[in-house]
Amino acid sequence: MKKTYSLMIHGGAGSVANKTSSLESIKKIVEKGEAMLRKGASSLDVVEKCVMLLENDPQFNAGRGSVLTHEGKVELDASIMNGSDLRAGAVAGVVGIKNPVTLAREVMDKSEFVFLVGKGAEKFALANNIAFEKPPYFITPQRKEQLMNTKKSNHMTLDHTIKDRKFGTVGAVALDLKGNLAAATSTGGLVNKNYGRVGDSPIIGAGCYADNETCAVSCTGYGEHFIRMVMAKTVSDIILYKKVSAQTASELAIKMLINKVKGLGGVIVVDKYGKIGKAYSTEGMIWGSVVKGGEVKAMLG
Amino acid sequence: MKKTYSLMIHGGAGSVANKTSSLESIKKIVEKGEAMLRKGASSLDVVEKCVMLLENDPQFNAGRGSVLTHEGKVELDASIMNGSDLRAGAVAGVVGIKNPVTLAREVMDKSEFVFLVGKGAEKFALANNIAFEKPPYFITPQRKEQLMNTKKSNHMTLDHTIKDRKFGTVGAVALDLKGNLAAATSTGGLVNKNYGRVGDSPIIGAGCYADNETCAVSCTGYGEHFIRMVMAKTVSDIILYKKVSAQTASELAIKMLINKVKGLGGVIVVDKYGKIGKAYSTEGMIWGSVVKGGEVKAMLG
Repeated sequence: MKKTYSLMIHGGAGSVANKTSSLESIKKIVEKGEAMLRKGASSLDVVEKCVMLLENDPQFNAGRGSVLTHEGKVELDASIMNGSDLRAGAVAGVVGIKNPVTLAREVMDKSEFVFLVGKGAEKFALANNIAFEKPPYFITPQRKEQLMNTKKSNHMTLDHTIKDRKFGTVGAVALDLKGNLAAATSTGGLVNKNYGRVGDSPIIGAGCYADNETCAVSCTGYGEHFIRMVMAKTVSDIILYKKVSAQTASELAIKMLINKVKGLGGVIVVDKYGKIGKAYSTEGMIWGSVVKGGEVKAMLG
Repeated sequence: MKKTYSLMIHGGAGSVANKTSSLESIKKIVEKGEAMLRKGASSLDVVEKCVMLLENDPQFNAGRGSVLTHEGKVELDASIMNGSDLRAGAVAGVVGIKNPVTLAREVMDKSEFVFLVGKGAEKFALANNIAFEKPPYFITPQRKEQLMNTKKSNHMTLDHTIKDRKFGTVGAVALDLKGNLAAATSTGGLVNKNYGRVGDSPIIGAGCYADNETCAVSCTGYGEHFIRMVMAKTVSDIILYKKVSAQTASELAIKMLINKVKGLGGVIVVDKYGKIGKAYSTEGMIWGSVVKGGEVKAMLG
């Protein structure tokens, strides 16, 4: 098989505040990732870097510019997985971590654990010199306003609440020149979330999965639906057992998501051949890609 | 298909402190669950009840008598899932909750979320009148000694550390007379765990899964291996795609666990026909069962 590389990233399913500027940002980030992969970087380094850049961009619901919890805080979740050996790292409910995906990577590389949550994860971050930022770095005026509006509409039906919440989770999946797959996902979660709620993004198998035998997957959407479906593993197992393409697997998995839990959201997939797939049950999903070293694309839809 | 019911519970893979008394306890709990199922109780109520009883028994690593964290605390994780509609609830890193499985059930029934962690989950528990207990209720002299010994041996190799830690997670899977499947899992996690570490037990798809289309699964073992394999969903998807029995699916999944991540632990499974399955890569697993309303068994092995 000819050596090649592919990359796909997403900035969330649902509506986007500023389409033009979001797409420009997505395109630039894919270009950076593409350059890294072309020069031989590992898929693991590339998905981490792409998700870091998405976290740093306040337009997306991850890292800086994340949605606010019921208490007006930014609580972040992220995960990363390496397809060659199924190593994985994840963090949930962390406050003040500049790049949660980098903390997830550190958990994978430097601890004997996979999943750290809350204050404990922050303690691990401190002990490993992970960058922290103060609340003003994370909180944008738009998110303050959004929280206020969401709280006002809390007496509305659940459907309306879900609609208002949007799903700006970010993620990246890649195949590198050595044939290794990797995936990473990062989020601020749901607007107005409460009680230490954790969604699918930091759950290995739900919001993120990578296995060289099948594919790399990152999800975005209403986290509860994706946890109940174990969505990323669902995509991987469709490819394992049905031997279909990344695109067919994405469509079949979204069909299952709708049929089984009336789920809202989307998936991006890169398979071991470097083919990509995407599907969603929301109005749209913002994504960018480069397939087998070809043209860089960024699209909403 | 003739209406029937089945139940399987486990008290963990690895060695057991007192075989005779653990087996007696397992048998009594299966008998209670069997009586409930016979009288028409839902599989969901039965797995919750069985796991509550296992949590209350200080011999097992869940609820009372759980292992201690590095800081000498009891931090508990649990999950529950309903196979008829894929509803699920889970909590992680909670302190002072008498029955974490009941809190997981409450999250499923009373919140719009699936997964709550840490202080937030405890706040939800308080708001919903869930029973709390003080530290002396949870902490046994044996666990204090175990923590001291584990800390001493921390300079030993990882294999030794793992061996010393044992895996006393508990769980239950059931099929009820209406043909509904359910699963529940609860644990104190690893001895000497640190940094808010969360294992597979509260991860839907890793330590727990139930889907009326396939089976109900509960896992026990080295949580990091089970998270990376998304073990419970792996079992469910083997049944979905390969149409094999619960026993064959259990064995195939444990084979994958060993081959892919050199994983340590075990699974218990009830399929939609009421057949049971179990397999493990550890020295043993303590379990009990009743198959299609037959004889109650309790065994180590």
